[in-house]
Amino acid sequence: MLTLYFAPGTCALATHIALEDAGAEYVAKRVDFAQAEQRSPAYLAINPKGRVPALATPRGIITETPALLVYVAQNHRHAELAPLDDHFAFAELQAFASYLASTVHVAHAHRPRGGRWADEAISLEDMKRKTPANMRACFELIQAHLFRGPWAMGERYSVIDPYLFTLAGWLEGDGVDIAEFPVIAGHYRRMTERPSVKRVLAAET
Amino acid sequence: MLTLYFAPGTCALATHIALEDAGAEYVAKRVDFAQAEQRSPAYLAINPKGRVPALATPRGIITETPALLVYVAQNHRHAELAPLDDHFAFAELQAFASYLASTVHVAHAHRPRGGRWADEAISLEDMKRKTPANMRACFELIQAHLFRGPWAMGERYSVIDPYLFTLAGWLEGDGVDIAEFPVIAGHYRRMTERPSVKRVLAAET
Repeated sequence: MLTLYFAPGTCALATHIALEDAGAEYVAKRVDFAQAEQRSPAYLAINPKGRVPALATPRGIITETPALLVYVAQNHRHAELAPLDDHFAFAELQAFASYLASTVHVAHAHRPRGGRWADEAISLEDMKRKTPANMRACFELIQAHLFRGPWAMGERYSVIDPYLFTLAGWLEGDGVDIAEFPVIAGHYRRMTERPSVKRVLAAET
Repeated sequence: MLTLYFAPGTCALATHIALEDAGAEYVAKRVDFAQAEQRSPAYLAINPKGRVPALATPRGIITETPALLVYVAQNHRHAELAPLDDHFAFAELQAFASYLASTVHVAHAHRPRGGRWADEAISLEDMKRKTPANMRACFELIQAHLFRGPWAMGERYSVIDPYLFTLAGWLEGDGVDIAEFPVIAGHYRRMTERPSVKRVLAAET
């Protein structure tokens, strides 16, 4: 049995959907960010980073979305959520995940969480002003160079799809109209029609 | 044959060392950042992100350090640079790589490249002031929770070692004395004694 620690509105949504896609046996435990539960001693014992997602497995805790998505795919091979037997295709999937984690997620985070990298109110406002342009640049690159269609990696649905869906869902709050990116908007809509996504969105809210 | 596009002082060093550790057949091509070659049409055709590293393989280009390190390990299994047959241990390695890419590298980047996320000089100064504390927090977490010893993932050397070495090498420039982290300092010193690391450092300079 796996336990996913999540909070609504975070990138934990990607792993949550992947677990559902995989037909995994898991329970989802909500970490109450409003009560700063992610900074509580009990949660820090699970994930000393004080972040979600974290996945408790029989052998220990795994964190970081790119690691979790591949772990879910490897442990549920029948679900075929990643090209595990093709090193090059797997590297392309990994590169997409890494870009989402270290560039796109980071570009977004400067709006709600700029205090991670600067202290003055004027700096945080500066970061917020720049966030829409940065998110736009990220999704222009994704649409032009990374996204294959109909799914992120091409004909086969993969764990990148829920990850892209999760971050595309942040565009509106970041001041970017997803309709600027028709391919991404179409993918987003198809994702919302998947039963696994519907189940997870219902469970998180 | 593989071609690694790199620039000195960047995270491409990690993949460069991993290729050398693997005994890979590769050539390393320097991208001249001083001439903004990474923004040239010729290089953007290789990597539209305008960044290094990029690895040209017979099947196409791969980018993003976490993806590249695992690709190198998978394509040179005899070198045993990752626990490829143990999903949980592999996920732990992936989580370490993802933390280095999306948290530690990003914390560092706010000193030399704050302009990615804000425009005003006062904001960039604010980010620079905060960088040492952020890097310190990252390496405290690494030393306390991620690093196993004697190598990053434990008894076995892995592709995480050159990645950690690369980022630890940025501490001094970020205003943090690596001696504050004796375990990391010891690892750094052992890395510099490896013939593969010596060869790569000589080749990059």
